Amino acid sequence: MVVLERAVKFDEVDAAGLVFFGRYASYAHEAIERLFAPLEGGFAGLVTERRIGIPPVRLEVDYARPLRFGDIVRIEAAVERLGERSGVFGFRLRRPGEEAPAATVRLTFVVTDLDAMVSCDMPHDVRTVLLEHLASDGSA
Amino acid sequence: MVVLERAVKFDEVDAAGLVFFGRYASYAHEAIERLFAPLEGGFAGLVTERRIGIPPVRLEVDYARPLRFGDIVRIEAAVERLGERSGVFGFRLRRPGEEAPAATVRLTFVVTDLDAMVSCDMPHDVRTVLLEHLASDGSA
Amino acid sequence: MVVLERAVKFDEVDAAGLVFFGRYASYAHEAIERLFAPLEGGFAGLVTERRIGIPPVRLEVDYARPLRFGDIVRIEAAVERLGERSGVFGFRLRRPGEEAPAATVRLTFVVTDLDAMVSCDMPHDVRTVLLEHLASDGSA
Amino acid sequence: MVVLERAVKFDEVDAAGLVFFGRYASYAHEAIERLFAPLEGGFAGLVTERRIGIPPVRLEVDYARPLRFGDIVRIEAAVERLGERSGVFGFRLRRPGEEAPAATVRLTFVVTDLDAMVSCDMPHDVRTVLLEHLASDGSA
Repeated sequence: MVVLERAVKFDEVDAAGLVFFGRYASYAHEAIERLFAPLEGGFAGLVTERRIGIPPVRLEVDYARPLRFGDIVRIEAAVERLGERSGVFGFRLRRPGEEAPAATVRLTFVVTDLDAMVSCDMPHDVRTVLLEHLASDGSA
Repeated sequence: MVVLERAVKFDEVDAAGLVFFGRYASYAHEAIERLFAPLEGGFAGLVTERRIGIPPVRLEVDYARPLRFGDIVRIEAAVERLGERSGVFGFRLRRPGEEAPAATVRLTFVVTDLDAMVSCDMPHDVRTVLLEHLASDGSA
Repeated sequence: MVVLERAVKFDEVDAAGLVFFGRYASYAHEAIERLFAPLEGGFAGLVTERRIGIPPVRLEVDYARPLRFGDIVRIEAAVERLGERSGVFGFRLRRPGEEAPAATVRLTFVVTDLDAMVSCDMPHDVRTVLLEHLASDGSA
Repeated sequence: MVVLERAVKFDEVDAAGLVFFGRYASYAHEAIERLFAPLEGGFAGLVTERRIGIPPVRLEVDYARPLRFGDIVRIEAAVERLGERSGVFGFRLRRPGEEAPAATVRLTFVVTDLDAMVSCDMPHDVRTVLLEHLASDGSA
C-alpha cells in the first residue's frame, strides 16, 4: 500500500466550498505517481520516454464525506486486481485520524502503447511494482 | 437532453497527451451548469445565494476512446433517475459526427443544504428543470 | 481583436469564493486558441503536429475587479507587438456591459521549436494570423 | 524564506508537453499556504473562518526554463515589500541542484475583507508571519 498525505489546496475547491468532485481523480493519480516512483525515471520516464501509459477504462468514486480547504487528505492506494495487460487500483481517501473514509476510488486501467494507442504487454518492471502493492487474493 | 459542444483546451491534457481522466468530471459539470441555466440566477444562484447544492455521492465513468487537444467534445446530458431528494445524471461524450461515444458518465447526487451539509427537499424549480430532462421511465 | 464570452465555471473559483488568479492565464489562452483557429489544424495542429509553440517568457496580470461563479467573462485579445520571432498579446477581461475591466493581461511569447526547445522563425501562416489582430503601431 | 519541493504532476502539463504557464500561480500559492501555516487554523482559517484574504492586484511571471513532468520544482518564497494593507511576495522556482531559476514570480496583494470586498487592516498575526519572511530593506 502506498500512503500519501497532503493538504487540500486553495484552488481545489468549487463554488459550493467543497473539493471539486473531479479533483479526487487527481488525488488518486498522485498516489499512482508515488507508487511508480521506484521505476527507473519514475512514472514520467514510463510515459514520456518509453511511451507506455495506463489510461483508465473505468473510474468509480463513492463520496462519503466532503473534503474542504483546510483539510489534510490521506490517500491510501493498493492494487486490487492484476491481469495480463490490465489491473484495478483501489484508493481510500480520508482525513488522518478519522476511520470512516471521505471517499473510495476504483480505477481500472489497461497498459497501453501510447504511440499506437493499443494495449500492450505489461513491462516486467511495471508488473514488479504493481505486485508489491497487490492486496491478497487480487491476482487474476 | 442538454447538448454542449466545446473544444478540448490546451491545458486539459496530461503528460500522456490525452485529456486527463479527471477532466471528464468538469465536462459533465459544464453540462449541469447549462441544464440549470433556466433557474433564476442559474446554478450559481442556487449554490451561492440559496446555498443549495447537489454534491455527488457516486461517479462512474467508462472511457472508450481517448480525447485529445484538437478534438471537439459533444456532451449530452440527461436525467436518468429522479427521486425525492436525489437523482442520477447520465452523460454521453463524443466527437461530433462519431456515433461511438468517447466516454459515458453517470453521476448520482443528493440535494443538499450546503450550510448544514444535510440532504434537503428538492426545491420545486429544481425539480421542474430536472423533469424536463428526464429520460422516459426514469422516475423513482 | 478576438472576442470570447463564456461563463465562469463551478470549479474555477478558490476557497475565497473568487476566480483563482491563475485561471486568468487559462482564460487568456482560450482566446489564443480561438485566435489561431484559422490555421490549418488550428492551434492544436501547430503544437502537436508541426511541434511549434509559443511558450511565454513573461506574463503580467493586473486584477481590478474579482470574478465570481455566476459571472460571464468577456475576453478581448489583440496583438500588441510583433517581432521577428516573438510578440506580445494583450487581453482585457470584463463582464459584458461593464466598461471597467475586471483584469488586463499581457503575455510575451517566443515562437519555439518544441522538439529542440529553441526559438525559431515565425511560420508565414502564424504571422498572417497575428498581423490580422495587430493593434495599430504594434509592429517592431 | 519558505522553501517547498514537490514533483510536477501528470495533469499539470499542457499539450506542448510543458507545465502550463498558469500553473506557476498555483505553485506560488502553495508556498503562500505553507508560509501562513503558523496562523491558528492556517491560511484556511484566515480565509474561510475570519473571511480575510489577500487577493492579488498584480502578478508578474518571468519564465526562463520550462518545467516538465518528471521534474522536481523547488519553490522559494519571501516577502519583498510590506505595507500597511498590502505587500509583495517574491518567488523563485527552480529545479533542485540548478542555480538558474526556471521562473520568478512577483505577486502584489491587498489584505481584504472578503465579505465586504474592501481592503482592511492587516491582522497582527498575519503581519507577524509576513515580517518573519521579509527580505532585508523590504519594509515600506
